[in-house]
Amino acid sequence: MTAVLHALSDETRLSIVRTLHAEPDGRACGTFPVNLAPSTLSHHFKILREAGLIRQEDRGTQRWTVLRRPEFDARFPGFLNAVIAATEITPARS
Amino acid sequence: MTAVLHALSDETRLSIVRTLHAEPDGRACGTFPVNLAPSTLSHHFKILREAGLIRQEDRGTQRWTVLRRPEFDARFPGFLNAVIAATEITPARS
Repeated sequence: MTAVLHALSDETRLSIVRTLHAEPDGRACGTFPVNLAPSTLSHHFKILREAGLIRQEDRGTQRWTVLRRPEFDARFPGFLNAVIAATEITPARS
Repeated sequence: MTAVLHALSDETRLSIVRTLHAEPDGRACGTFPVNLAPSTLSHHFKILREAGLIRQEDRGTQRWTVLRRPEFDARFPGFLNAVIAATEITPARS
């Protein structure tokens, strides 16, 4: 669980998870709304993958990133929802 | 929110939060079931305090640490419950 919490304790990774949360089919690499070097983004994906939050798969010539929502919800019920909800609240209060 | 996730992404701090979660009245410093130098424990308390998870107060000659449960639940509904539930699940699966 600390690996999951650590994975989510970074604005970029939290933003990736929120983006994927809104897109159940996943997203092609290179289309994430972040302005980072590919190697940096790759590093963030690795941490999210190792925490069990995402999986990456090749579809044709593209690599796709998908949130492992069902597996994650089964393992930690309510957790991801609570994190997403909490991050939606934060900006409105700051 | 990332500060909260970071604060909880450490086994010691998560254990402190879980201990306090079970004791709504809080706990006197020096009575936490962790084997750490006072300065190390103090460092962990500081991170939890800055994330808004705990408060510390003097009661007579003792310093008490209390989980800021109501404030935190009001700010991030369901989040703390989901984290506590998730950390209860993890050991059974490992």
